[in-house]
Amino acid sequence: MDLLTIKDPSFLKKMDISELEILSQEIRDFLIEKLSITGGHIGPNLGVVELTIALHKEFNSPQDKFIWDVGHQSYVHKILTGRACEFDTLRKHKGLCGFPKRSESEHDVWETGHSSTSLSAAMGMAIARDLKKEKNYILPVIGDGALTGGMALEALNHIGSEKKDMIVILNDNEMSIAPNVGALHNVLGRLRTAGKYNWAKDELEMLLKKIPAVGGKLAATAERIKDTVKYLLVSGMFFEELGFTYLGPVDGHDYEALIEQLRYAKKTSGPVLLHVITKKGKGYHPAESDKIGTWHGTGPYKIETGAFVKPATAAPSWSSLVSETVRRMAREDERIVAVTPAMPVGSKLEGFAKEFPDRMFDVGIAEQHAVTVSAGLAAENMKPFLAIYSTFLQRAYDQMLHDVCRQNLNVFIGIDRSGLVGADGETHQGVFDIAFLRHMPNLVLMMPKDENEGQHMVYTSLTYNDGPIAMRFARGNGIGVPLDDELKSIPIGTWEVLKQGSDACILTFGTTIGMAMKAADILEKQGYSIKVVNARFIKPLDEDMLSEIFRAKMPVLTIEEAVLQGGFGSAVLEFAQERGFSSAVIDRMGIPDQFIEHGEVDKLLEEIHFTVDDAVKKLKSISMKKQKRA
Amino acid sequence: MDLLTIKDPSFLKKMDISELEILSQEIRDFLIEKLSITGGHIGPNLGVVELTIALHKEFNSPQDKFIWDVGHQSYVHKILTGRACEFDTLRKHKGLCGFPKRSESEHDVWETGHSSTSLSAAMGMAIARDLKKEKNYILPVIGDGALTGGMALEALNHIGSEKKDMIVILNDNEMSIAPNVGALHNVLGRLRTAGKYNWAKDELEMLLKKIPAVGGKLAATAERIKDTVKYLLVSGMFFEELGFTYLGPVDGHDYEALIEQLRYAKKTSGPVLLHVITKKGKGYHPAESDKIGTWHGTGPYKIETGAFVKPATAAPSWSSLVSETVRRMAREDERIVAVTPAMPVGSKLEGFAKEFPDRMFDVGIAEQHAVTVSAGLAAENMKPFLAIYSTFLQRAYDQMLHDVCRQNLNVFIGIDRSGLVGADGETHQGVFDIAFLRHMPNLVLMMPKDENEGQHMVYTSLTYNDGPIAMRFARGNGIGVPLDDELKSIPIGTWEVLKQGSDACILTFGTTIGMAMKAADILEKQGYSIKVVNARFIKPLDEDMLSEIFRAKMPVLTIEEAVLQGGFGSAVLEFAQERGFSSAVIDRMGIPDQFIEHGEVDKLLEEIHFTVDDAVKKLKSISMKKQKRA
Repeated sequence: MDLLTIKDPSFLKKMDISELEILSQEIRDFLIEKLSITGGHIGPNLGVVELTIALHKEFNSPQDKFIWDVGHQSYVHKILTGRACEFDTLRKHKGLCGFPKRSESEHDVWETGHSSTSLSAAMGMAIARDLKKEKNYILPVIGDGALTGGMALEALNHIGSEKKDMIVILNDNEMSIAPNVGALHNVLGRLRTAGKYNWAKDELEMLLKKIPAVGGKLAATAERIKDTVKYLLVSGMFFEELGFTYLGPVDGHDYEALIEQLRYAKKTSGPVLLHVITKKGKGYHPAESDKIGTWHGTGPYKIETGAFVKPATAAPSWSSLVSETVRRMAREDERIVAVTPAMPVGSKLEGFAKEFPDRMFDVGIAEQHAVTVSAGLAAENMKPFLAIYSTFLQRAYDQMLHDVCRQNLNVFIGIDRSGLVGADGETHQGVFDIAFLRHMPNLVLMMPKDENEGQHMVYTSLTYNDGPIAMRFARGNGIGVPLDDELKSIPIGTWEVLKQGSDACILTFGTTIGMAMKAADILEKQGYSIKVVNARFIKPLDEDMLSEIFRAKMPVLTIEEAVLQGGFGSAVLEFAQERGFSSAVIDRMGIPDQFIEHGEVDKLLEEIHFTVDDAVKKLKSISMKKQKRA
Repeated sequence: MDLLTIKDPSFLKKMDISELEILSQEIRDFLIEKLSITGGHIGPNLGVVELTIALHKEFNSPQDKFIWDVGHQSYVHKILTGRACEFDTLRKHKGLCGFPKRSESEHDVWETGHSSTSLSAAMGMAIARDLKKEKNYILPVIGDGALTGGMALEALNHIGSEKKDMIVILNDNEMSIAPNVGALHNVLGRLRTAGKYNWAKDELEMLLKKIPAVGGKLAATAERIKDTVKYLLVSGMFFEELGFTYLGPVDGHDYEALIEQLRYAKKTSGPVLLHVITKKGKGYHPAESDKIGTWHGTGPYKIETGAFVKPATAAPSWSSLVSETVRRMAREDERIVAVTPAMPVGSKLEGFAKEFPDRMFDVGIAEQHAVTVSAGLAAENMKPFLAIYSTFLQRAYDQMLHDVCRQNLNVFIGIDRSGLVGADGETHQGVFDIAFLRHMPNLVLMMPKDENEGQHMVYTSLTYNDGPIAMRFARGNGIGVPLDDELKSIPIGTWEVLKQGSDACILTFGTTIGMAMKAADILEKQGYSIKVVNARFIKPLDEDMLSEIFRAKMPVLTIEEAVLQGGFGSAVLEFAQERGFSSAVIDRMGIPDQFIEHGEVDKLLEEIHFTVDDAVKKLKSISMKKQKRA
C-alpha cells in the first residue's frame, strides 16, 4: 500500500497476518530509504515494526495510550498515524520531530526523549483513568536498557503495589544504546534463554503429581512448588515479585505469537509485563549485524553498502579529543578511571576501554548512580572521569550537588553535547547546564575555545586536587587546530584576551568564540575597536580581568549558547553588582526562556536572534552608550 | 561503662555478648536522655543499637568502611567512635552534626543526608579498593525505605553485575519515615515472614530425595528444584536475581544471630545482602509503639510520658495550612489528587488521606517518580498536588524540566521546607530551589507572605490551567494571621506594595517579609522612607511594578533566603539589564556561594550577614547612592 495515504491506524483491523507482513516490509523499505537521506534512529525503529503494527491492530489509539519510552522508536507509530508524508523533514527545522510530540498528533499522548519516564507517566494515566471511571488500555513500551534507569524501577515498585491495570511492553532488544550492562540485563538474559516455558511447566506439573503424599506437610510444600513452577522455569520471578503478571518471552517479529500474547494481556487484570524479544535493525543487514550501537542513530548512509555519508573533516570530534586525552593521561596515572552511563560509543571511550578494561565502567542508563559512584571513587583517592551528556546530567542534579560538590570530591565531569544539539531537539538541547551548575558551591566549570585548549583543560582537571571540576564541550567536531605535544595546566579562573579593543568587550567561551571574532572583525572594518575575551572559566570568573574591564568603563557583551536565566551573563551582572561597578554597561546574548525545538543549529540560532549580525548590532549599541557617557 | 570515655570502638573486640547487652542498654538510656533535651532522630537510632555495636565489633573502622544511608541513624556509630561527649550540642550551631560528617571523624568516610546514595558510594569505594589492590570490607547500611529510591536500584544493578565484594546491610525496620509503600516493601514483607529458613530447606531437600528418578529429565528438574529451594522458601529471589548472595533475615536485636551472620557474610565472596530486621524506637515504649512515624525525628520530649515539649503557637504549620487547603478544595473538585514521596506525615497529608483515600498516593522514597506520575496525572486532566520538600525536589530536577515544564502540564508543586531548615543542616537546607527552577520555561514560582496569602495561592494553583505552578513555603509555623473564609485567586505575576516609601525599595517574599518590615521601621525612625514590596511571584516578575520602581530611580534591595547565584536578585538584575535600566541601583541579600551547616536558623543567618541590621546597613548605603545621584 501507499504509506503516504495512511490517515490513521484503523485500516489495520481488517488485515490478516500475510497482509501485515507485506506492510512490515513496506514500512522497512520506507524507513531504510528515508533515513538514508535524513539520518535518524534507524536501528530502534526497524526493531519495532511488527510490535508497533500489532499494537495498533489490537488496541485503539488514542483512547488506548501508547507511551513510547525514550521515544526514538516512534517512527513506525508516526507512519501508522498519518505522518509518513512528513518523513522528508524528519528532525529538520519545523519538520517532523524524532520523538513523540503532542502537538503533532492526538496519538502522541506523552512526550519523551530522556529515558525511563514511561512507567511513571503510565501510572499517572492509570490512576486518572480509574478515578474518572474510564476504560482504556495503557501501554508503556520500554526497552531493557531504559529499565535500568532508577525512575523506571521506582515506578515498577509503585505500579506493582497499586495493582493498576496496565500492560507494560518490555521491548528487549539485547542492546539499549550500547550493549547493556548490569544485573538486570542478566536477569533478562536468563528469561530470554529459558525457552519453551509452557511445555516445561506441563511436564513438571505432571511429575509433581507423582510425589507420594507424606502427610499434610509435603502436600503443602508441593503446592508451593507448583505455585512457583513458573518462576522455576523461566527464572522470571523478578517482575512477579514486584506484583506484575509476567507474560512471554515472545518473538517480537512473529505476528501470530505477538497478537496471541497481546490478547492474553488484554484479558489479564492488574499490571502485566509482556516480554517481547526484538532485534534492533531487523531487516537491514548493516544495522542488524551491528554489535556496538553504531546503527542506533545515524546520519545519512548509502543503502547498498551501509557506508555513512559524512562530511570530510580533519578535526577530531570533541568527545574523541577529550576521551583520548584522558586515555593518554591514564597511562601515567593509574588512579584515573572512566565512568559512563551507557554512552561508551557516543563518548568515544572505546579506546580507553580497550586499553584499560579494568578502569572503565559503563553503568548503564543510570546517571544518578554514575555521578555518585564517581564520588565514591574520588572519596577513595581515585581520579574519576565521568563522561556524560549535558542533557543527561540533568538527571543527576542532586547527586552533583549533594554528593560531589558538597563533599568537595575530585571528580572530573566531561559535559558532552553542551549547547544546542540540533536534530534531537528540545529534550536534548544542552543549554541548562550552566544555570543548574553555577550555583553549586566548590564546582569549577569551564569550556575550551578549541581542541588544544580542550586537551589542556583535561590535563588541568585530572591534576586538580581541590574539588570537582567540569568541562563543557560541544557536540560534533573541533575546529582543527594543531595540538601541543606537551599537556599543561591552565590556572583556575583565568581568562585569555584573544583580541584587544577599546570600544566594547565580548566575553564568551567555547563554540561561540568564532562568532565573537567574526563580529569583532566586521566592526573593525566599520571603525570600532572590539576586545574579545576567552572567558574559559565560567566559574570562577576571572575577577581581576573582569574588574579591569569594568574599571576601564568598557561596555560588555556576554555570549553563551545556554539559557540566559541564571547563566554566565547573570554571573557577570552579579559580579558587577557585588563589586559596585554600578555604571557598568552590560548586554547578554543567550537562549531565551523557552524550549528550543529540533532543527539545524544555524536555523535555530537565527530564530532566537543569536547570530553574528545580532552580536554586531548589540556591540554597536553598547559601544554608543559608552560614547554617550564619555 | 562511661560512654563519654570511649575514644574508638576497639574496646568492643574483647566484650562478650552479655557485656554487649549491658552496653546496648547504656547507649539506649544515653540516647533517650540526651535526645529528650536536644531532639533528634530517636526512632532510627534506637533501632540500630545492636546492629551498630555488632558491626564495630566484627569489623575494623575506618579501614572497613561503614556507609550510613540517609545518615540519621549514625548516632550510635558516633558514640562508639568517641563523640558521646558532644551529644549536648547535637544538631546545634557548631555542634555535633546529625548526619555523618567527614570533618568530625575519620570513621565517617561518607556523608549522607539524602536517601539512597550509599550503594553507589560503596560501589565506587569497592572499585577503588580493588584497583589499589587493598583489602577491606565495605558495608553500606541501607533501610528498606531508602531501597525504593531509584539510584539505590541503579546501584544494586551495577553491583550485582560487577560482583564486587561488599556486604550490604539491609536494615529492614518495616517503616522508613512513614510506613513503607511499594511492591519492594511487599517483597521484603514476604522475606520477613518466611521464618525458619534453614529448617525448611533441610526438610525439603530430604523430601526431594524421595522423588523417584524417571530418567534424566526428572533428575535435571529435581536439581533445578534443589537449586531454587532457597528462593522457593524465603521467596527472596529478588536480590539473588540481581547477583547478590542473600543472607538472613536475622533479628537485628539478637547479638548471637547477628554476629553469626556477619561472620558468614565476611567469608562470602561477591556482593552479599544481609537482611536484618530491626524495630524502630526499640527499647523506648513511646517510640517503639509509633505506627506512623511521629518518633522518626522529634524535638524535645518528656522521657516518662513521651509527650513532646513544643513551644505554644496559635499558628498552623505551613505544611498543614497547605495540605488542608488542598483538602478543602478537593471537596469541590474531584480532579484534585495528592502525591507525596514518603512524607505523608511531614507534609501533614493525614487529613487528606483519611478523607480521600483513593486520591492520595504515597509513592515511597521516589522523588523522580513522584514528579512524573504527577505529570502523567496532569496529562489526563487531573489536578495533582505534589507535596515535596525543597531539598528532595533536587532529586527530580530533570523530571521537573523534561516532563512537567517542557510539556507544560498543570501540576501544582508545594515546595515544603524552603529556606534554611536549621538542625538538619547542609544536606537539607532548602536554598537551591529558586536557582534550579527559575530557568525552567513555563513554570510559575511563588511564595506567600503569610498563611492567608498561602491559602489563596493554593487556590490560585489548583485553578490555574496554563501549566506548572509551584509554591515555596517555609519549615515550621506561620505567623498566625486570620484566614479569609473565601478562597480567591491571585493574578499571576503581581506583586503587592506593603509599605510606601521613596528612598529605597525592598523586594522580598515569604518569611523574609518580616525582616524587611522591621528594617523599614528602624530606618523610618532614622528619617528614611523605605518602600516594601511583597514580591510574591518569583517567576514571572511583576514587570510593570518593577519598571515603575526603576523609572522612579528607586534603589532596590532584594532579600531572599536562597542562594544568590542565579536567584531572585539575579532575576531583578537581569530584568534591569534587559529593559535598559542601566542606572538602576540594586543590592542583593541571600545565601552566599557555600554550603550552610546545621544550627539554629537565627545563628546561621547572623553568620552569613543576613539579619535586620544587615538589611538596614545595605538600605542606608543604597539610599545614599540615590541622594548622591540626585
